[in-house]
Formats: sequence, structure tokens, C-alpha cells
Amino acid sequence: MDNLEYAQEGRTELGHLGEFALIDRLTDDFPRKNKSTVKGVGDDCAVLGTGKKKTVVTTDMLVEGVHFDMMYTPLKHLGYKAVAISISDVAAMNAVPKQILVSIAVSNRYSVEALEELYAGIRLCCERYDVDLVGGDTATSRTGLIINVTAIGEVDQERITYRSGAQLHDLICVSGDLGSAYAGLLILEREKVTYQANPNFKPDLDSYDYVLERFLKPEPRMDIVKWLAEKEVVPTSMIDVSDGLASELLHICKQSHCGCEVYEEHIPIDYQTSRVCSEMSQNMLPISNALNGGEDYELLFTIQQSDYEKIKDSKEVHIIGHITEEGTPAVLVTPQNTTIQLVAQGWQHNE
Amino acid sequence: MDNLEYAQEGRTELGHLGEFALIDRLTDDFPRKNKSTVKGVGDDCAVLGTGKKKTVVTTDMLVEGVHFDMMYTPLKHLGYKAVAISISDVAAMNAVPKQILVSIAVSNRYSVEALEELYAGIRLCCERYDVDLVGGDTATSRTGLIINVTAIGEVDQERITYRSGAQLHDLICVSGDLGSAYAGLLILEREKVTYQANPNFKPDLDSYDYVLERFLKPEPRMDIVKWLAEKEVVPTSMIDVSDGLASELLHICKQSHCGCEVYEEHIPIDYQTSRVCSEMSQNMLPISNALNGGEDYELLFTIQQSDYEKIKDSKEVHIIGHITEEGTPAVLVTPQNTTIQLVAQGWQHNE
Repeated sequence: MDNLEYAQEGRTELGHLGEFALIDRLTDDFPRKNKSTVKGVGDDCAVLGTGKKKTVVTTDMLVEGVHFDMMYTPLKHLGYKAVAISISDVAAMNAVPKQILVSIAVSNRYSVEALEELYAGIRLCCERYDVDLVGGDTATSRTGLIINVTAIGEVDQERITYRSGAQLHDLICVSGDLGSAYAGLLILEREKVTYQANPNFKPDLDSYDYVLERFLKPEPRMDIVKWLAEKEVVPTSMIDVSDGLASELLHICKQSHCGCEVYEEHIPIDYQTSRVCSEMSQNMLPISNALNGGEDYELLFTIQQSDYEKIKDSKEVHIIGHITEEGTPAVLVTPQNTTIQLVAQGWQHNE
Repeated sequence: MDNLEYAQEGRTELGHLGEFALIDRLTDDFPRKNKSTVKGVGDDCAVLGTGKKKTVVTTDMLVEGVHFDMMYTPLKHLGYKAVAISISDVAAMNAVPKQILVSIAVSNRYSVEALEELYAGIRLCCERYDVDLVGGDTATSRTGLIINVTAIGEVDQERITYRSGAQLHDLICVSGDLGSAYAGLLILEREKVTYQANPNFKPDLDSYDYVLERFLKPEPRMDIVKWLAEKEVVPTSMIDVSDGLASELLHICKQSHCGCEVYEEHIPIDYQTSRVCSEMSQNMLPISNALNGGEDYELLFTIQQSDYEKIKDSKEVHIIGHITEEGTPAVLVTPQNTTIQLVAQGWQHNE
């Protein structure tokens, strides 16, 4: 009766494919039947609708022990982060979030009061970004907590930004700074190990406040979406930085059929991130953190060179490089003027 | 550091609240900020949009070991069912499904080929109901398989059916038959026990084909939604039967501020369902199955008496009772003319 039996022969382990190759393989031959489906799988959001105002939709699942560790994740922060992550995908389409639906599965290890903490965080993020909670599902799980957030947003058709629109010579921009969320995770993992060895240990986390907040309570960059609208700039392509800068640049290059050059000295890294790296190991370079750390939820986008004047004075947006022609690789140019080809190391969840 | 500690004092166990009371408690004080949010939490779908054409959205999470048992659930059927369940919620709003997003979390017990089977079922259901798969997420789980489906549909504003619109003297109708999915589950659980005792045992399931299909591969009643449109009938209220007839009638009565009477002899029960009940136990009544079994995914709706002529000849829709005034209970009238007050026993997952 066990229908998993057939999987014994000719079995391909999930680890043999990356997440993106797996999604491609599973969803490749789905037909598209409805004219209201403008864009399906393959960007930060799907794009729906037949009018000039489009609807964007995204869904994200977070699993305890894979995406978050209850040892150091306050439930209120977790609720906030689950919503923030989904809103970040909406922001990456240059859209404004309007509604979310939240499904949770919980084991009886969690009390009603614990779930109220989770929902207090969900509510806080909804209030901050003017989003309505409009639905959801509550299920039992055998182990731990699973949260799925679907976010819905709106955008005028002429302002939608896909990953596929970057053009030769476009400038590559990124908001905020990179690698800080991963630095926060490194600190939390270090303190966890110390605490497990000695439960009387009281961690001193004050001097890591910035990187910890970046990891535990990220903010989607809706301020950048608003600022782009004010400056009357429509990026030619955009993606949010969830898996690390290298992975996201490769998505844009692949989908826009181009290469890119980014300059190491222009990649924004906070001093606290650099300090954490040097504390952790002599060999841990802040630039590796920025390229491969992930969970920054900053916006990476490209603009036409003619828009340079409109954005050059921003303190929050950094021009890190430019798009090169089809057939060229995506490379990092070091201060010594050597080039290193980018590979998608992606985000290693803390397993 | 463990933030679950606070839950030790003043802890309320999840089991102390039912699912619906828990959702109320968690989502009660969320403000609504967007005019495009027409209806939030509390119906089969949320209703969104500012024009005459509305968007409906629903989300459902299925957890291995809680909602399905891999011992007897073919992955292709599971994929089909996950989509069918969400489409059924769209149908319950009198809407037409257009897109879905599917998130999955899987442990490495599953191979790529196993997930391809799951997606073959998802694709089959999408093709059958003209739905586009437009997005999703793929995550790792520690144990087993979790599937979350978000379904999006469309409906003209004047055809939306909420749970709250039933009026005094309206006729109560239900499609198909009830209790058969639960009968199918009972058979599968019985065969599982036998198989576990003797792995050489080959179950003979041929004579249970109808009830097994009802459980393993339910069909959302989009045919009824289409038929209602053809007959130019807009139900005054509608809900899909996922938790058993009793629970759904109580939802309609609560939200429409009314009572109801349904007649035992008019409740549609298939002969195979009755046979399974008598096989299982002398004390198992088919009517209890219909009231409390769940997972039927039939449509329960109310119509004005003036629409009676339009629907009376349907073989697929059964008039089972009528709405009574506010303050009266929801009751079952037996063939002996005694009345039994309905209680929401709900759907007991096979734990």
C-alpha cells in the first residue's frame, strides 16, 4: 500500500537539484489558460489582471528548525518578519502591498498566548505597511510551527518591474547595506552554542543591536518604492535580496539575457557587519557575507543611465555597477582590478 | 534565551479553544485600512477589489500525518485534492477560480520523482478547472510534507454569495451526497490496520470505489456554480461542506442571524456510504456521517422560495430544509418528527 515505494528505484534526491532547478522541473509544463494571468512563476510575484491596474501575488513558507530557531526568535519578531518578507516580494515588483493571508500549522507545544504573540507581530507589520489581514488557515502540525504568508499588492501597469528588463549599460543599484542580517545570524548561533554549554550564561548582545535587528526584524523597502515614484524613476529590472547579492544578480542577468560588473568597493557594508566578520574568523570577509549571506531584504534594481541625475544624491541607494552585454559573465571587480566570476552560493539555512 | 518560557504560566492550551474561536481570538482586532478590502476573515474567501468584478482569495494548509496519511494517499491524488479543496472555497463564493499559488515544504524522504507525482496531480486539477499555477515556494521540512494552496477567483459583484445572506423562509439546498468521503476514510483506516498486522495482505477495495474516490479525489462543484448562473439563481448564502453539514449549517445560521430546520429523510446519502456504515458498526448511522463526517466539498446554499421552480428538477441539488427566524435553533427533524438540535462536532482529523 505504501506509495512511496516506487521512489526506491530511479530515485533522484532533492539535494541533487537546487531549489530553482526543482521549481523549474515541477512547474515547467503547466499551461496558461486565463488572459488575466500576465506573469506566472519566475519573478518575485505573479502579475494578474486585465486592466491598467495590476494585482501582484506572492507566497512564502517558513518552517521551524529550517527558517527560524525558536531558541532565539521571539514570536512577535517572527510574525513581523513573516509578513515583512512577503511585502518585500511585493516591493520588488514596484508594487504597493494591500492584503495578506496567513496559514499556520502548530503543534500543541504552543499555547494560545504564544500564538497571540505571533499575531501581535503580524499585526504590527500590517499596521506599519497599511496591509489588511483578510484570511488564513489554522492547522495542527506534528512538530513545530509552519507559517505561510500570501501577500497581494497593486501597481500601475507602466510601473511594474520584472527581473527581465535590464538593458546594456544600465546602472545597477542596491538599497541599504548587505550582509548584516547574516552577521546577526552568526552572532545568535554563537550565543546559542555558549548558552547550551552553560545555561547560566547571559549573553551581552547590546553591541550587536543593528545586525540582530536586521536578522530578526527586517523591514521591506517600501520607502524605496515610494521614493522611486517621487523621483519618477521606473527601474528597468528589480528583485529583492533574499538569497544574497550574487544569487540575485545572476537571476537578473539570466532573465534579462545580459552580464554585469559590480565593484567591490561600492558594495555597501555596515561597520558592525565588518566587525562581526573579523570577530568570527580571520578568513571571513565582509564581501563574502554581502554576496552570499542572504535575508537582507534590500532592493536590487537597474536604471537607465539617463536616470542617474535623479538618484545620485540618495544616501539609501548605492550604484554598485552596470549591465554588460549578452554572453558576458556576472563578475565582481576587486579594488586590485581583478575580476571574480559570481556563482550562486545562495542562502544556507541554519540546519 | 528560550522565549517559549513565558508560556509556562497562565498558559492556555490550544485544545481549549476550537479552531474557529482561535481564529476569532487571533484576528479580532486587526484594523482594515484599504478600500479594496471588501470582506476579510470569516467567509470561505476574502473579497477584494474596487470595481464591479471582484477578486476572491482563499488559502489552505495540508499537513502530513494530520490531513493526510502517506500510507494510503497516492501523491498524485494528494496534489489534485489540495487544489480541489481550495477551488471549492472559491465555488462557495459563487466565483470562478483563475489562479493558484502552491507552497510546499518537504523532508528529504521525498524524491524529485515523488514531487513530480504531486505536481502531476496539481496540474491535472488545474487543467480540469481552467486554473493557472502562477507561483509558489519550495522549502525544506524536518518531517514530512506540508502543502499550502492559495486560490484566486473572479465573480461579478451582484453574484457574490456570503454565509451571511440567508433570510427567513429561504430553502436550504445541498449538492451531491454527504458522508461518503468520511466513509472512504473509514475503509482506508480499516485496511491500514489490517495491512500493518499482515504486510502480505492485499486489500480488496473494488467494491468501495465511490467512497474512496470521494475521499481521495474530491471534485469542487464548479458544475453547480455554472448551473446556478444558467438558471439565473443567486443563492442568498453559500458555504462548502468541509467540516460536516452540522458545522456548516451553524456557520450560516450564526452569520445570517437565523435558525434552520433540515429534514433527515431529505439529506442525500449514497447507498455505498450506508453500506460502509452498517459494515463498520451496528451503531454507526449514515446520518451522523453526513452531519459530522466532513470533507464532502459539496455546496450548501439557501435560495428564495421564489426560485424554487428554477431548481426543483435538478438531480444534483436537494432541498433539505428551510431557514427559521432569529433566536430559534438549528435542528434536524427525524422521520418520527422529533427534533434534534445540531451541534458542531466538526471534522476529527485522523490522528
